[in-house]
Amino acid sequence: MKILALETSAQTASAAIVAEGRILAEINITAGLTHSQTLIPAVNALFATSQLTLRDMDLLAVSHGPGSFTGIRIGIGAVKGMAQGAKKPCLGISTLEGIANNFRGLPGIVCPVMDARCKQVYTALFEGKDGGMERLWPDDALSIADLGQKLRELGKPVTLAGDGAELCFRELSEAVPGLTLAPVQLRLQRAACVGLAAADALENGASPIPAAELMPVYLRLPQAERELKKKLAQTKGKEPTT
Amino acid sequence: MKILALETSAQTASAAIVAEGRILAEINITAGLTHSQTLIPAVNALFATSQLTLRDMDLLAVSHGPGSFTGIRIGIGAVKGMAQGAKKPCLGISTLEGIANNFRGLPGIVCPVMDARCKQVYTALFEGKDGGMERLWPDDALSIADLGQKLRELGKPVTLAGDGAELCFRELSEAVPGLTLAPVQLRLQRAACVGLAAADALENGASPIPAAELMPVYLRLPQAERELKKKLAQTKGKEPTT
Repeated sequence: MKILALETSAQTASAAIVAEGRILAEINITAGLTHSQTLIPAVNALFATSQLTLRDMDLLAVSHGPGSFTGIRIGIGAVKGMAQGAKKPCLGISTLEGIANNFRGLPGIVCPVMDARCKQVYTALFEGKDGGMERLWPDDALSIADLGQKLRELGKPVTLAGDGAELCFRELSEAVPGLTLAPVQLRLQRAACVGLAAADALENGASPIPAAELMPVYLRLPQAERELKKKLAQTKGKEPTT
Repeated sequence: MKILALETSAQTASAAIVAEGRILAEINITAGLTHSQTLIPAVNALFATSQLTLRDMDLLAVSHGPGSFTGIRIGIGAVKGMAQGAKKPCLGISTLEGIANNFRGLPGIVCPVMDARCKQVYTALFEGKDGGMERLWPDDALSIADLGQKLRELGKPVTLAGDGAELCFRELSEAVPGLTLAPVQLRLQRAACVGLAAADALENGASPIPAAELMPVYLRLPQAERELKKKLAQTKGKEPTT
């Protein structure tokens, strides 16, 4: 089972080919060009160096959110295009589950956190178990303060990972005993770990879907829609008074 | 301090740019083309996507051995060429130290092992400390049986990493209590961790060297030289009798 996995939910653009629980090839870029400039050349470079093609892939996996709205759309759009053209099945993996899978095979509890701006984070909680990651909390959008409260109540050592890990560690490390920051080589999104998580998901009964059914999972509405909603609510609220 | 790091000591061809303790860009290929075909295009792809150039680098780091004789020569040759042309300083890092640095920032003892053929391994021992790795044993070429004996005597939980990890785990896991196999995403050589180890080494007082002084560290003579030596010894041994 060969899987092409893409990860574009934050600053890192990442692509990988995994097969039979191994990482055959990967590229992770956290500097320089934008995802739209980096991603397809990265996929081409993976295929060229590994001497594999899109036709050799059995599944296209992508972290489907939460995360940067534009980033998620680029990753999902790229997978939809390739899957549609090459008639390949797809699987969307939670961005937070992908981050947690950096720690697969290691003991302990991992809290992936992504900066959702305005002192909010996208977060969840996982524990290393049987070589994979067991989910303890669902994906959620929380204030950093509420996350701190939940972690204090948990009362166990927790490692923060993801692009929001440093922010949360700064804000919460004094108030939450046993909180640690993931080392840099395990901290950021890595498509290889999305691919390994996708293989686990299939093994645990998840069904691949056609390209047309692959959809972003944003957890929150985009800012433009939130503002529109607010405006409409205000307008509506004003109507009775006019 | 921007570092370009290369790792070609075994099957994985790997290149990375690290700066200020972060991984800016990396490519790891464990399938397909040979190092001589993969390495320079990988470096070019890193520079193109990160919008950096060789001129922006402050140091070229390379895992200088032990490992595959051909692999090591390709990595060192590439770094020598680039460093000579761009007038950049170099630093050789032990391949085994590079592998151990996959675990930097995590607690516990790591035993990097590389398959040296004929039931022999290149190995060493490190422990995670203060965000880096503290060396417990020097780099050595040992029989797998001797490594098992040393690990039994150590009497502590140890994680095997490197391209010889599976082989050693198969041979030793019954006889050595507490032996575990590194999870796949932390198991193989990764240039990013060579780069991070190089930054640590500089901080701890190591001096960069000019390209001309960069040399492979093989630990053992190449097979051809071992056989020549054996043949010469046999010839010499025979001389008195003729």
